[in-house]
Amino acid sequence: MMILYYAPNSCALASHIALEQVGADYEARRIDFSRNEQRSPEYLRINPKGRVPALVTERGVLTETPAILAFIAQSFPQAKLAPLADPFAFAQVQAFNSYLCATVHVAHAHKHRGHRWADDPAALEAMRKKVPQSVGECFELIEREMFRGPWVMGEDYGICDIYLYTVARWLDSDGVDPARVPKVAEHRRRMQELPAVARVAALHVPAH
Amino acid sequence: MMILYYAPNSCALASHIALEQVGADYEARRIDFSRNEQRSPEYLRINPKGRVPALVTERGVLTETPAILAFIAQSFPQAKLAPLADPFAFAQVQAFNSYLCATVHVAHAHKHRGHRWADDPAALEAMRKKVPQSVGECFELIEREMFRGPWVMGEDYGICDIYLYTVARWLDSDGVDPARVPKVAEHRRRMQELPAVARVAALHVPAH
Repeated sequence: MMILYYAPNSCALASHIALEQVGADYEARRIDFSRNEQRSPEYLRINPKGRVPALVTERGVLTETPAILAFIAQSFPQAKLAPLADPFAFAQVQAFNSYLCATVHVAHAHKHRGHRWADDPAALEAMRKKVPQSVGECFELIEREMFRGPWVMGEDYGICDIYLYTVARWLDSDGVDPARVPKVAEHRRRMQELPAVARVAALHVPAH
Repeated sequence: MMILYYAPNSCALASHIALEQVGADYEARRIDFSRNEQRSPEYLRINPKGRVPALVTERGVLTETPAILAFIAQSFPQAKLAPLADPFAFAQVQAFNSYLCATVHVAHAHKHRGHRWADDPAALEAMRKKVPQSVGECFELIEREMFRGPWVMGEDYGICDIYLYTVARWLDSDGVDPARVPKVAEHRRRMQELPAVARVAALHVPAH
């Protein structure tokens, strides 16, 4: 059995949904950020980065959402969550997820995690202030250039959809009006109707 | 023939080295950041993100270093740049590269690209000031928890080594003494001795 360490409404939601959708044998264990459990000695032994998600498998621990999502897709090929037999199409999936991880999530993180990159309180405030713009521009690029419809990669649903849904849940609290990105907003609504998504999302609190 | 768009000493160096090492039929085209060519209408048609790398293939354009590196490894399996037949080992490779992309590169980017996340000049200065610490802590985590030796993933050389070398070239100019991370520093030295690395690195100017 695999164990997924997650914090509610963090990016770990993506791995959580993917595990649920493929029917994996897994247990989800909640890490309480308000009690700083991610920095506890016990958790740092599992994931020295002190972050979520961390997926404990029989062969070891995996971290980083793009890697975990691709691993779940490859480990449960019957679920067809990625174009596993086509390196170019698979790379497009990876490129989209990498953009969410390294650009969209990073823009979002400047709201509450600015201390990673500056110490001055005024600088942290300046970062928070720009989040609606920087996150909004990321999503507009997704809307205009990346999203094919009806799913992210076109006709085939997959791990890009799960990850996009996860970060699109943060739009409102990041100060971005979802009406600016109607395709993303409508995708988010459809995602919420999927039974596995609804089951897992119920365990994750509303956007912070 | 593939076309790689790159800027000297940017993270595009990793894709450049990988193409050279597998013996791909490719042309490398330089984008001049000092003339803001990455924002030109011509380049934005190739990569709407206005970033490098972008790899133009016969099937379309790929972006994002982790995706491009995995694509090159999968397209040239005889080069053995990734454990393609083992989803868990492949996920570990992806996790390492995702960490470089979304955490290490992002920490580095606060030196010259702080305007992505704040507008206030004092905030940009506060970001620059923390780069030696944030980048240094990333590399110490790599040194202590991730680097197996002699190569990143142990006995097998591959795309993690190419990418680590690329970002480790920025250590000195980011204000991190390489002596703090001796295994990474020694790896960087060995990488520079590889003929394909030396050939490509000669086209990339010293660390900015």
